[in-house]
This record gives sequence, C-alpha cells and structure tokens, in this order.
Amino acid sequence: MAITKDELIKKAQKPAQDAMRLHPFYQGKMQTAPKCCIRDINDFAIWYTPGVAEPCKAIKEDPSLVYQYTNKANTIAVVTDGTRVLGLGDIGPEAGMPVMEGKSLLFKYLGGVDAVAICLDTKDPDKIIETVRLLAPAFGGINLEDISQPKCFYILDELRKDCKIPVWHDDQQGTAGVNLAGLYSGLKITGKKIEEIKVGFLGSGAANVATARILITAGVDPRNILMADSKGILNRKRTDLESQYDVKWHFAQITNPGNIEGGPEELFKGADAVYCYTKPGPDVVKKEWVASMAKDSMLFACANPIPEIWPWEAKEAGARIVATGRSDFPNQINNSLIFPAVFRGTLDVQASTITDEMCIAGAKTLSDCAGKIGMTEEYLIPTMDQSWVFPEVAASVGMMAIEQGVAKITMTREELLKTATERINYSQNMAKCLTENQFIKLPKD
Amino acid sequence: MAITKDELIKKAQKPAQDAMRLHPFYQGKMQTAPKCCIRDINDFAIWYTPGVAEPCKAIKEDPSLVYQYTNKANTIAVVTDGTRVLGLGDIGPEAGMPVMEGKSLLFKYLGGVDAVAICLDTKDPDKIIETVRLLAPAFGGINLEDISQPKCFYILDELRKDCKIPVWHDDQQGTAGVNLAGLYSGLKITGKKIEEIKVGFLGSGAANVATARILITAGVDPRNILMADSKGILNRKRTDLESQYDVKWHFAQITNPGNIEGGPEELFKGADAVYCYTKPGPDVVKKEWVASMAKDSMLFACANPIPEIWPWEAKEAGARIVATGRSDFPNQINNSLIFPAVFRGTLDVQASTITDEMCIAGAKTLSDCAGKIGMTEEYLIPTMDQSWVFPEVAASVGMMAIEQGVAKITMTREELLKTATERINYSQNMAKCLTENQFIKLPKD
Repeated sequence: MAITKDELIKKAQKPAQDAMRLHPFYQGKMQTAPKCCIRDINDFAIWYTPGVAEPCKAIKEDPSLVYQYTNKANTIAVVTDGTRVLGLGDIGPEAGMPVMEGKSLLFKYLGGVDAVAICLDTKDPDKIIETVRLLAPAFGGINLEDISQPKCFYILDELRKDCKIPVWHDDQQGTAGVNLAGLYSGLKITGKKIEEIKVGFLGSGAANVATARILITAGVDPRNILMADSKGILNRKRTDLESQYDVKWHFAQITNPGNIEGGPEELFKGADAVYCYTKPGPDVVKKEWVASMAKDSMLFACANPIPEIWPWEAKEAGARIVATGRSDFPNQINNSLIFPAVFRGTLDVQASTITDEMCIAGAKTLSDCAGKIGMTEEYLIPTMDQSWVFPEVAASVGMMAIEQGVAKITMTREELLKTATERINYSQNMAKCLTENQFIKLPKD
Repeated sequence: MAITKDELIKKAQKPAQDAMRLHPFYQGKMQTAPKCCIRDINDFAIWYTPGVAEPCKAIKEDPSLVYQYTNKANTIAVVTDGTRVLGLGDIGPEAGMPVMEGKSLLFKYLGGVDAVAICLDTKDPDKIIETVRLLAPAFGGINLEDISQPKCFYILDELRKDCKIPVWHDDQQGTAGVNLAGLYSGLKITGKKIEEIKVGFLGSGAANVATARILITAGVDPRNILMADSKGILNRKRTDLESQYDVKWHFAQITNPGNIEGGPEELFKGADAVYCYTKPGPDVVKKEWVASMAKDSMLFACANPIPEIWPWEAKEAGARIVATGRSDFPNQINNSLIFPAVFRGTLDVQASTITDEMCIAGAKTLSDCAGKIGMTEEYLIPTMDQSWVFPEVAASVGMMAIEQGVAKITMTREELLKTATERINYSQNMAKCLTENQFIKLPKD
C-alpha cells in the first residue's frame, strides 16, 4: 500500500484528462427521449391537440391523475445555485452544469429516475426556495445539490415543511445515509452497540451536520457526540456560535454534556468512530490522534481528493476500520450508492416526503447488502457495480414510507423490489441499446 | 364536402378517446436518456466526480464553454402557468402538463430539440418573468406556452429585452409565423402585393395581435389593417381601450386611419385577407361578410375545433383561399410546422434572441417549400409529414440570425441544412430504435 501523494494525484488526473476530452466530444450527458409510441404523424393528434385536451380536463377534475397521465411521477429536478460545487466552491450556475448533468445521468442509470438539471441564477436562499415551490407541478421530487452552507440547512428545512413534493439535499442526506451504512457495518464487525458508541465529528459542514443528525435519529446518544469546527470542539461556552444560523449552536447544546473544550486531540480521545470532513490530506489527521481512539475504532477520513490521513497510516495507528471518499481505496463513502435508490423507492410509492427514517432504512439495507456479498473490514458497503443493491435499497425506502403513512401507493416488499428492478433494468438496457445502435457513439480511444 | 357539425365533432372524439386510453398506458410522453458513453461504472469517474471538476473549472474561466461541455446548447424549457391551455382556459399547471409534455415530444421528434416541461405554480406575470430568468443558466432557450393574455404580451416583451437566452411565445410568434406563411402562398397564387393588401383581424387575442405585428414587419401597411374585438373595430374613439395594457390601444393608433367604426360587416368589406380567431363555428362568420371581401380573397377561419365558417360555404361566398385550424381540411394553420424548426435554427447558430425577421424568414421558407411540393389554393403550406421541410426552415432561421448579427456560430446555408437534417434524423431514428427494441411498447389495438 506504499502509494505516494504524487502517485495518487497523478492517478486522479486521468479522469480529469478524459473529462476534458470527452465532454466536448459528447456536448452533453443527457437528452430527452420519447416514452410513448409515434406510429406516424397522426399519433400527434393523441399526444397533442386535439386529443390531449381530454387528459388535461381529467387532471383538472382530479389533480392526482397527473401522476398517471404524465411522467411527473418519475421526473425530478436536480437543483443548484452553483455556490458549492464539488470542492470548487462558488463557481456559479453555468459551471455547475456538468455536475448536475452527471448527477442526472447517475439518477437515470442507477435509479431509473428521469432527472433534469436546473441551475439557478441566484444565490438568495428565499428565491431558491420560492423557485423550487413554483417548479413543483411538473416534478415528482427535488434533489438539491451543491448549495453552500449554512443556507443549505435553511433551504432544506423550509422546503421539507411545505413543498408539495419530496425534497432531498444529497450533500446532507445522501452523505449521511452512506455514512450510517458504513457505521452499521462497522458495528456488526466490532460488536459494538449504536446507543453506546462515542462519535466524533471533525468539521461541521453540511456532511457532518447531516450525518450527526441522522446518526442521532438512528440511535446514537447525542451526549456521546463531540463535534468540532476549525475553532475547536462545540460547547456551550462557544458564544461565537450564538449569532449564527442555529445548526452549530444547536449541536453545542445537545452534544458534549461535559462542555469539553479543545481541538482534535480531545475529540479523538476514546472515540469509537470519528467522521472527518475537513481539508485534503494527508497529514491533516495525526497518527497519535487515531492512536488515542477506543479499541476497534472506526475512522471515516472523507476529504477529497486525498483523505485526511492515509488509510494504512490510520491502521498502523490502531484504527480497525478506515473509510475514505476514494474509489481506489476500500470502503468508499459514495453518495451514488444511495440517492438513486432513495428516489426510486420514494417515487414508486409516491411518498409525500423523504423522512429520516426512510433514509435510515436505506442505509440499513445498504449495510445488509454488504453482508450478503461478504462483509469485511475492507468491505463495509457495496460498490456501485453491484446493481442488484439499488432495488433492494429502493424497496426498503418505499416500505418505510408505507409504514410511516407518507406513501400514496401501497405494495408488498416483493412488488416494490420487482418494480424497482424493472425500472432500473429498463434504464440500463436502454443505455446499452442506444450505444449498440450508434445513438451514443464510443470515443475512438 | 357535405360534412356536418355532428360528424366533425364525432370525428374529433377519436383522438380524445385514444388519448384517455393511451395516456395512462404510457404514464408520460417524455423521459431522459444518456447522451454519453457508459462503457462501465468507471466512466462515472469521467462524467461525475472526480473527472467532472475539470470541465466545471474550464466553464468557470470561460462561461461560453457551457455550450460545448453540456447539453445546454440543445435544451429548452417549455414554460407555462396553465392559464390558457388549448381552448380550455385556466386549468392550472398540473392539468397543463399533458400539453407541455406533448409539446416537448414535438420539439424532439420534429426539431431534434431536447425540451423540458416546466409548469409553474403561479399566475403572477412578474414571478413568471423572474423564474424564467433564474432558469436561464441550464437552458439554451425558452418556449412560453399557453399563458393567458394580456399578461403573455408583457411577459414576452420583458423577457425579449434582457433574458440571457432566446425566448419565444409559440401562441404568438408560432401562430403568426404559420399565418404569414399562408399569406405568402396566397399572395403568390393571387398575384397580389403584400404592401397593397387590406387585412382584417376578427378577434384581438394573442394569435391575431401577434399575426398583425409580424405581418406589419413583413410589409403589410398598418393603414390597410382593421382589427376588431368583441366590441367592434379598434379605432381612436375607443376610449375603453385606453386603460388596458397598451396592445389594443396601440393598434387603435396605428391601424384604421379612417377611424372606421362598426363590426365584422365593416371589417370584411373589401378586405383581401381576414384572420378570424374568435369562437368555434360554424355560422360565427356569415357568408354575406365573406361575399363582401375583395376579389381573390383569403380567409383564415382558425377557431377550434370548428372553424368560424365551413370552408365550402366560405368558397361558395366567393373566398378564393380558405385556411382553418383543422388537419382534416386543406390548409391547416399548424404551429407545429414552425416552432421545432425555429428553435432548431436558433440553437444551431446559438442565436441570442429570436427576432421577428428570423420568424419571417422561416415563414417565407415554409411557403417556398409548399411551392416545391406543388402549391395550390388547397395546399398553401406543407403538412407535418413533410419532414424535409423542417431543416429547410431551420436553415433559413439560422441564416437570418447570422445576417442580423445575433448568432454566435457562423455557417453556410448548406452546413446549417446538413446540421439540422442530421439532428432531426437522429431524433426520429432514435424514436424508431426505442420502439423496435421494445423500450416504447406499442398499444395492443
């Protein structure tokens, strides 16, 4: 495992080079396609005027029919303002487009979900909220993406309150879901109990805040949590937080009952698990900090492109389980494992919202699926090529929605699994068909 | 031609019945599809993180690259508030969805344009304007649709002033374009000159207002125009119009220099052409009015589903040329002949706006194409199944944009024609491929 930083950075350059060659080659990653028959020009009298007036009138009488007569039920918007795109910061809505199109591609291919990139020309959180509300009639759900914090918390919370369709912020909930899946697997391996573990969060951005929220809902005792920002561990004496949007201040109240002060050294000490979302490493997290953790510790070092500490160094220092954001190390914390399936399950039962419990159910199934493949310390969660995992996660998400009474459609788990499998297979086979028939050309090299 | 009103209404019921059967069968008319290769899961490292960061950074440096690295250049939004859907009135954004999806299907199939249905949950014109501006980064153009008047005039005018992408209101400009094409053909047949003809407009809604505007730009002398609303011919004494949004008042100033008062009788008298957009006929327009028109007169009786007067009655009364909105009568005034091609041409040259001259150039070519097929009094404009017509119209629209200096890309007409043909063929062949491979199933009967 003696790979150097330079080698890793070089390795990461290959996709970047390919991206610069292939983005102009394809001039876009997503397009539209018909879903209905066009036997000849006369069919347009059915799909457009005069025939189309009839389904319009029917929807006017019974608005729920829009889910049966149009593709609303399977269409979502991927909405960004471009203020925190990947690790690139505020690059604006146009520059965010390649990511939103890429996300739409993942939604289609991995989840069978029709997603549309919407990049908004405003940074005002209230305008973003209003625009999402105005867009709701044509969409079955909203995936918020790459919106800077703290406004992303406010936007999500407001929209979850009253938007007519389910709203998800992938940088919060998707990340939290995969982190929880990793934790579930780690607990199984180490035999620890979720209500007993001590958890540290190094960094208090969207990913860690959302992960802490979901972990607490899943059973972690907030009194066993320490969270730190760049100024140190959050506690009740941190009056600098009082004036902020209340997320960090809220955590300063509910976590850390001992009012522990200090930095990472204190945060790592005795922790069973630490989630790091700070800055690219290596050497951001020190070996001695990891060495101070509890026995059978789990470290999530998620900075990109280089984790806060090399996995092998963390292991040398005593961590039993190490996860990172990289696909070329074991245990990649990868949102793509969860967001397509969460929306698949949500749309299939026409859930009115995506509850934390639905996210947790998905995370649990993700961990269970790793168990079926063969869970080890180096295989906490499945990888993206395990395509059977997505319908399983979707089915669990849908079942939880039914159980919680937020679903408009009721099915058995078997029916949900079948539906999700068919819809995802449809997408992947369509991509194959378009490629085989040269509608998607392969690059020459 | 002795078809009765009852027979025609019955005939119109078939598409309605098919629509009610097939809309729930397909559950949507449009979906998304990948445009780029997915050789295996590893390609997502190019299309999504980490590779995608590179094109994002490049667009941040040079925003114009978004047209090369994403599908923005070929994607438009079909935007409505559902306040004037077909002839159904204000049925709301959800009930408007089947039409917007149908429009998106026509855009794809006839124009090779990727269109997305956007149905807004507001009727406030300023909010509609603002939302369109906010949506601009992800789209290459906007097609406004089925928005009630008079606000549709205001919305279009405002957005044409300063929206970063071209904006078109099909109920105005599309209708005007096809009406002008019909007039061009009528002038060729009758040998009349555009600057000399007298034109009447019965009805002063969006279609007639826009048609009058375009006809004036194309050379009709406004002093030779009479326009009437339900209260009679517009003139300077009509102080009831002063308080309105200025469209009708404007026409009261520039048309009808003799300040003629009265109703349809006066409007038809001596007119070379009359455009009727009033209420479903028959018998809304009287034979004696038509009989009072000039020699070789042209009548556009465009009410749906039944024209204001039966075409054969209009001919008996002396009209030489009759056009209607119906596909089962000769000379259908059908927007679908122009909007897909106008956007094809606009997007292919990355025009910053769609000028009236671009619309006029498209109309002229539409008439010329009818000439190539074999123009007669009963064949003023091509029908939708003449698919070679669309690239021809697109090329003319694009060439006019280049000539006027509003195009970012310059090509020869031959190149434009080739590009448009390829893109439209791609769409139609893709639909065929998806059908042959069962991704679009045919209904059983």
